[in-house]
Amino acid sequence: MALPSADYRNAMARLGAAVTIVTTDGSAGLHGLTVSAVCSISDNPATLLVCINRASRGYAAVRENGVLCVNVLGPGHADLSTRFASATAHIDERFSDPNLWMKMASGCPRLRDATVCLDCKVDRVLDVGTHGMFICEATDVLLGSECSGLVYFNRGFYGVINSKTKLAQTGLAWLVPALRLRISRSAIRERGK
Amino acid sequence: MALPSADYRNAMARLGAAVTIVTTDGSAGLHGLTVSAVCSISDNPATLLVCINRASRGYAAVRENGVLCVNVLGPGHADLSTRFASATAHIDERFSDPNLWMKMASGCPRLRDATVCLDCKVDRVLDVGTHGMFICEATDVLLGSECSGLVYFNRGFYGVINSKTKLAQTGLAWLVPALRLRISRSAIRERGK
Repeated sequence: MALPSADYRNAMARLGAAVTIVTTDGSAGLHGLTVSAVCSISDNPATLLVCINRASRGYAAVRENGVLCVNVLGPGHADLSTRFASATAHIDERFSDPNLWMKMASGCPRLRDATVCLDCKVDRVLDVGTHGMFICEATDVLLGSECSGLVYFNRGFYGVINSKTKLAQTGLAWLVPALRLRISRSAIRERGK
Repeated sequence: MALPSADYRNAMARLGAAVTIVTTDGSAGLHGLTVSAVCSISDNPATLLVCINRASRGYAAVRENGVLCVNVLGPGHADLSTRFASATAHIDERFSDPNLWMKMASGCPRLRDATVCLDCKVDRVLDVGTHGMFICEATDVLLGSECSGLVYFNRGFYGVINSKTKLAQTGLAWLVPALRLRISRSAIRERGK
């Protein structure tokens, strides 16, 4: 018997995941959406996976453009990720602040203060159930000046703040504060449809 | 020109990921290894991705057994994840504490106090570069009593502690402590080889 979707969703809510904004531009036009299903596959060749709901506008845009940029978010980007996850926010509204965005070589927008940006070329697409698996070659990376992350866990955002202190050399455990930014009852991927 | 592996690894170190122990049992025997490349694909049918280095013993075992269990770890499991990521730890050493382990219906070991366990049947395997992409159907899930997570970010462990308090209903930001457990210079996936 197939596992009920609700049971699966409740289980996957407990698998913490980095929050990203995936952008694309090209013949299908500009688009961007919040994605938490991004996963490293191989470092040689540099390959990563991006899963996008097939019912979303972003799926069609990335598929036609054949390029995307994965912008890995930091703790200060929870509101931005919500904007890019909204089913109703028009593309102009998503990219409404031009100061936030620059461009990668592919032409895809990159978030100026992202933790890291990965410019990618779509190598192949595998449709599985509700989602498309975009298997991408990473063609360029840009590390941000701040090394901290935004994680989605149990349907809420958590900030991961990295401390590059001398304590890091000791191997001892110590405390780092994390900011719980928001509670949301709907998973990012659900809202990204 | 291909992106240098080191650049790709440095970039992916900034993509936070849940830490899991993937177990398998069957005709190829018992095995278990630490994996941080697990990703949800689709909720209908319930499908997830597990990426395993093709040079690892775990890859061959999962491929032949055709079943696996994803044990999502909590903040107290950093040492256990290190044991299952060791290139030298024999399988008996990895599973040396029988009190920690029970079995799923598939026969794969499940960690008794995991945040969540997902029993899976391998649907297909796609080899890409250094890794195998195991596309798996989730056949059963077991939620743990504790809802907290272990995240790997910037080559270190972070605990994500979930507070189910009434504050959660307000939507206001508040502080939750996170425990930085350990610094490691080698990525989990590297040590999982």
